[in-house]
Amino acid sequence: MPLKKPHNGLQNGDGSHEKDSRHFGNGSQQQNMDLNDHEGEHNLPSVLEVSNDSPVVNGIGSSLANGSLNLHSTVKRKLDGEKDYVFDKRLRYSVRQNESNCRFRDIVVRKEDGFTHILLSSQTSDNNALTPEIMKEVRRALCNASADDSKLLLLSAVGSVFCSGLDYSYLIGRLSNDRRKESTRIAEAIRDFVKAFIQFKKPIVVAINGPALGLGASILPLCDIVWASEKAWFQTPYATIRLTPAGCSSYTFPQILGVALANEMLFCGRKLTAQEACSRGLVSQVFWPTTFSQEVMLRVKEMASCSAVVLEESKCLVRSFLKSGLEDVNEKECQMLKQLWSSSKGLDSLFSYLQDKIYEV
Amino acid sequence: MPLKKPHNGLQNGDGSHEKDSRHFGNGSQQQNMDLNDHEGEHNLPSVLEVSNDSPVVNGIGSSLANGSLNLHSTVKRKLDGEKDYVFDKRLRYSVRQNESNCRFRDIVVRKEDGFTHILLSSQTSDNNALTPEIMKEVRRALCNASADDSKLLLLSAVGSVFCSGLDYSYLIGRLSNDRRKESTRIAEAIRDFVKAFIQFKKPIVVAINGPALGLGASILPLCDIVWASEKAWFQTPYATIRLTPAGCSSYTFPQILGVALANEMLFCGRKLTAQEACSRGLVSQVFWPTTFSQEVMLRVKEMASCSAVVLEESKCLVRSFLKSGLEDVNEKECQMLKQLWSSSKGLDSLFSYLQDKIYEV
Amino acid sequence: MPLKKPHNGLQNGDGSHEKDSRHFGNGSQQQNMDLNDHEGEHNLPSVLEVSNDSPVVNGIGSSLANGSLNLHSTVKRKLDGEKDYVFDKRLRYSVRQNESNCRFRDIVVRKEDGFTHILLSSQTSDNNALTPEIMKEVRRALCNASADDSKLLLLSAVGSVFCSGLDYSYLIGRLSNDRRKESTRIAEAIRDFVKAFIQFKKPIVVAINGPALGLGASILPLCDIVWASEKAWFQTPYATIRLTPAGCSSYTFPQILGVALANEMLFCGRKLTAQEACSRGLVSQVFWPTTFSQEVMLRVKEMASCSAVVLEESKCLVRSFLKSGLEDVNEKECQMLKQLWSSSKGLDSLFSYLQDKIYEV
Repeated sequence: MPLKKPHNGLQNGDGSHEKDSRHFGNGSQQQNMDLNDHEGEHNLPSVLEVSNDSPVVNGIGSSLANGSLNLHSTVKRKLDGEKDYVFDKRLRYSVRQNESNCRFRDIVVRKEDGFTHILLSSQTSDNNALTPEIMKEVRRALCNASADDSKLLLLSAVGSVFCSGLDYSYLIGRLSNDRRKESTRIAEAIRDFVKAFIQFKKPIVVAINGPALGLGASILPLCDIVWASEKAWFQTPYATIRLTPAGCSSYTFPQILGVALANEMLFCGRKLTAQEACSRGLVSQVFWPTTFSQEVMLRVKEMASCSAVVLEESKCLVRSFLKSGLEDVNEKECQMLKQLWSSSKGLDSLFSYLQDKIYEV
Repeated sequence: MPLKKPHNGLQNGDGSHEKDSRHFGNGSQQQNMDLNDHEGEHNLPSVLEVSNDSPVVNGIGSSLANGSLNLHSTVKRKLDGEKDYVFDKRLRYSVRQNESNCRFRDIVVRKEDGFTHILLSSQTSDNNALTPEIMKEVRRALCNASADDSKLLLLSAVGSVFCSGLDYSYLIGRLSNDRRKESTRIAEAIRDFVKAFIQFKKPIVVAINGPALGLGASILPLCDIVWASEKAWFQTPYATIRLTPAGCSSYTFPQILGVALANEMLFCGRKLTAQEACSRGLVSQVFWPTTFSQEVMLRVKEMASCSAVVLEESKCLVRSFLKSGLEDVNEKECQMLKQLWSSSKGLDSLFSYLQDKIYEV
Repeated sequence: MPLKKPHNGLQNGDGSHEKDSRHFGNGSQQQNMDLNDHEGEHNLPSVLEVSNDSPVVNGIGSSLANGSLNLHSTVKRKLDGEKDYVFDKRLRYSVRQNESNCRFRDIVVRKEDGFTHILLSSQTSDNNALTPEIMKEVRRALCNASADDSKLLLLSAVGSVFCSGLDYSYLIGRLSNDRRKESTRIAEAIRDFVKAFIQFKKPIVVAINGPALGLGASILPLCDIVWASEKAWFQTPYATIRLTPAGCSSYTFPQILGVALANEMLFCGRKLTAQEACSRGLVSQVFWPTTFSQEVMLRVKEMASCSAVVLEESKCLVRSFLKSGLEDVNEKECQMLKQLWSSSKGLDSLFSYLQDKIYEV
C-alpha cells in the first residue's frame, strides 16, 4: 500500500479558494486570508503549534489574496536547515480562513484541502482549559465542519498543553455565585460539547501535543484516530478532585483500557504516558515531538485523499451501534455532575479541594 | 495532583474507635481489639500477609483497649532497619475488629479508617481454595461492608497464594455422594458469591499477592482496581479440567483481553504473568513484592480520603450498563456448571481428570 | 496443569479410520488416503505449510491403505537431524482424507483425530485471495466440520501468505461486466462466508503463517484462538482501497484493539506486526516460524483431548451474547459494500485505485 508516497502540490490554492468561499461565506463576506502560504514558509511544526501570541485576526483589513506573502503572520519561523528543504516544501500548505472562522476567540479553525483543522488556542483560560464559552466555540466549529465539504476533522492544540480539562477557577467562581443556576448551565455545556463529538459523522483525527487532562482526555475515545507526541500524557483524576467521570469516560475507558486500568485512572488519578496510552489502546500511535506535526499532516492528507463516502460510511459502521449508548452515558454523567454541584455537600468537598490547589499553586 | 503526599496520622485510633463501635456493634458487644497498633510495629507487609497461624480471635478475653500493646499478636515482626523507620511509622495503622468480624473462620475482616479489608485466610481448605462455606463468609463480609460507613473494600489474601479457585477435592467428595443435590448446591453457592461482587456498590480494590486461579482469577474483572505483586500469576484452565467458565469470565475476559487471549486462557489454560496480565488489561499495575503492601495501602488510603458519594456514584456510572448483563452471564454460567455436574458424563470426565491430578500430586 | 505432557500414540490410524469413514462417506465411496503417515516422515512443519504445488488429489487411483507409504506425496521432506527424532516422532500423525474432502479445489480439508484441519491453498487465485467460489468451499468445509465428530477446527494456509483478502482482479473483472448483478452476488458471498464463521459452534483455532490482509484479517476475531508465526502481519486497508469494512471488523476491531488503533487500521491501513497484534489482543500468542507448526499442533491436540461438550458449551457462553450483534453488523457491512459497488461513483473510485495498483505491480 502506498501509504506514504510523497505529496506534491497537494493544495491548489486558487481552485480550493473559490470552492471554500462558496461553501463558507456569503458573497459579501468573502474576506479570505492566508496565514501561512508564503514562499520560504517551511516551518511545518507551526501547523500544530502556532504560537499562542498570534493576534486573533478578524478578517478586516488583513485579508490578502491567496498565495501572496502575508507580512503580518506571527507564526514563528525557525531557521530551515538546507537538508529539510525538500521534505518541508513537499508539505507546504496554504491556509485559508474566511471571516466566519476568524470570529472564534479561543479556537482557530483552518479550512484545509479536504479537511478542517480546529486548534484549541484559548485566550480566556490557561493551558487550553475548557469553559462553557470555549466548548460552545468548539461545538460551533464542529457544526460548521459537519456541513462543509471537508472529509474529516483534525483537532489539535496551540501551545505545549493539549487541553487541561474543565477550568476549575472558572468553576469555583461561578458555582460560588449561584450554585443552582450555574451547576445546570455548566453541566449542560459539557453535555452539549460531548454530544457534538458523539454525533459528528466525519472521522475525527486528534493530535495530542502535550498533556491531556480530565475532559480533554475523556473525549479522546469519541474521536476516531488519536496520534500523540512522545510528550503527551493523560490523566483523568475525577475522584481525586471530587468529581464523577465526564465525557463518556465512565463507559469508554473501561471498554478500551479494561476496568482495572480505567478505574485506576478515574478513581486514583493514574497518569498514563503516551507510550502507555498507546500500548493500552487509548492512542493509535506515538511520534517523536520534533516530527510530530509532519507525521500527522502526512497521514491526515493521505486520509483526505480517500473517498468522502467511504470515510463517512466506515465511521458510521464503526460507531452506529455505540452512538445511542454513548448519548445515554453522557446524559447520566452530566446529570450526576449537576447533582454534585447543586448539593452543598458535593460543592463543599469540591471547593475545599480546589481552593487548596489554587493556594498551593 | 498530589497523589502521593505523605500520610501523617491517618488513623486517629480513639476517634475512629468510637465511631466504629457505634457502627458495628451493639453497646453490650463492644469488645474491640487492636491487633497491630503497637509502638514498634513497623512491619507493614504484614497488612496483607498476616501469617496464617494467627489465632482466630473471638473477642472474648483478649480484647484490649485501643493503642495498648497486644502481647498476643502473632503477626511476625521483621527486624526494622533504622532507615525504614520514618516511612513505616507514617504508615502505621490501627486495626479494629469487633466481635461480629471475628466470627469468620476462613476470612479475616478488618475495619480500617474509611475502608473494609477482607483477607482470604482459609483454615478449611488449602491455598485459599473456595468452598461453598468460604464463599458464604465472603458474601456475608461483603454484605456487612456494603452497609457500614466504609468508602471502599480492599480484598487480599493471607499466605503466598491469592486464591486457587474452587476446592476440587471438596467438589469430588460432595458430587460423589449426591450428584443431583450437591451440583445444585455448589452451583448456587458460586452464583451467589459472584452475584455479591457484581452487586457491591462501593469500589473494590483487590491486591493479588500470588497465584490467582480459576474462580479466584475470574472474579477480578468484577472488582474495580486490581493491583498485583510481581509474584502473582493468573490462570483459568476451565476446559482443561473439564469445566465451563465461571465468575462471568466468559463475558469479562473476552471484553478485557480480546477473544483471542481470553479463549486461550479459558480453553488452553494459558497462564499469564503479572506483567502480561497488566499489559493486557486484567491488572491495573504491578508492584515489587517487597513493597507491594505499602504501595497498596498508600493508594487505598488515598482513595479512602475521597468523597464517599463520588466514589460510589463513579462506580455506579462505570458499572451501571454492565450490571444486568453480568447477572445474566452469571446465571447462565452456573446453570451450565450444574448441568455438567448433574450429568453422569460430565461428572465422569471431571472425576477422571481430577483424580489423576490428586494422585499425581 | 500438565498442559504440555508428551503425546504418545495420539492417532490410532485404523480405529479412527473406521470411525471417520462412517461419518464422512457412504460405504461405496470410502477411498481414504494417507498423505503423510510414513515411517521417516518427521517433517512436521509441512502440516501447515504443505507446498503449493502438491497435486490436488481427487481420490481416484491414488488412494492407499492407511499406514502404507505414499510414494506420490509431494510434501517436502527436510533432512531430519538425529536430535529432532524423538520429538518429531512423538508428533507424527496420520492424515486421512476421504473422497468428499478431496473434492475441494482451493482448500485442503484434513480429518484429524478430534479435529478438522482446513488449509487455504488456492489454485485459482494468488496469495490465497478470496473469490466467491473459494469462500463457498470454506463454507462447505465449515458445514461438514460442524456436523462431524471433530471437537474443534484448525484453520491455516498453504504457502507463505495466510490470506490476502478479496481477490481484487476478480472483483474488477466481474464488476466491470455487470455491476448490479455482480455487486449483489459478491456481497452475498462475503456475507455468507462471514456468517458461517459467526455461527460455527465448535472452537476455531487459526494458525497465521504469514500476511493476513483485508477479509483475511477481519475474520480473525470471529475465530476463537489465533496463533501467529513471527512472520505474520495484519492489515485491513479498507478506506485506502475505497472500501468500507467487512468481516465484522467495524465492530470487532474497535472492541479488541480500541477505537484509536482499529480506526487507524480501517482508515489508514496501519499494518500490525505479529507482536503488535499480540500485544493489542488480535492474536493469542506468537511463535517462532521454525517451530510454529509444532507448537500449534501440540496445543490443538491438547485441546482436542478435552470434552467435546465442555468445548462447545464454553464457546457458546463466550459467544452467545455477541452472536446476534455480529450477524447484524455483517448484514450492514455487506449491504454497504453492495451499495458502493452498485453505485457508479463508488465503483469508479475503486476502479481507479485498483487499476493503478495492478499497473504498479
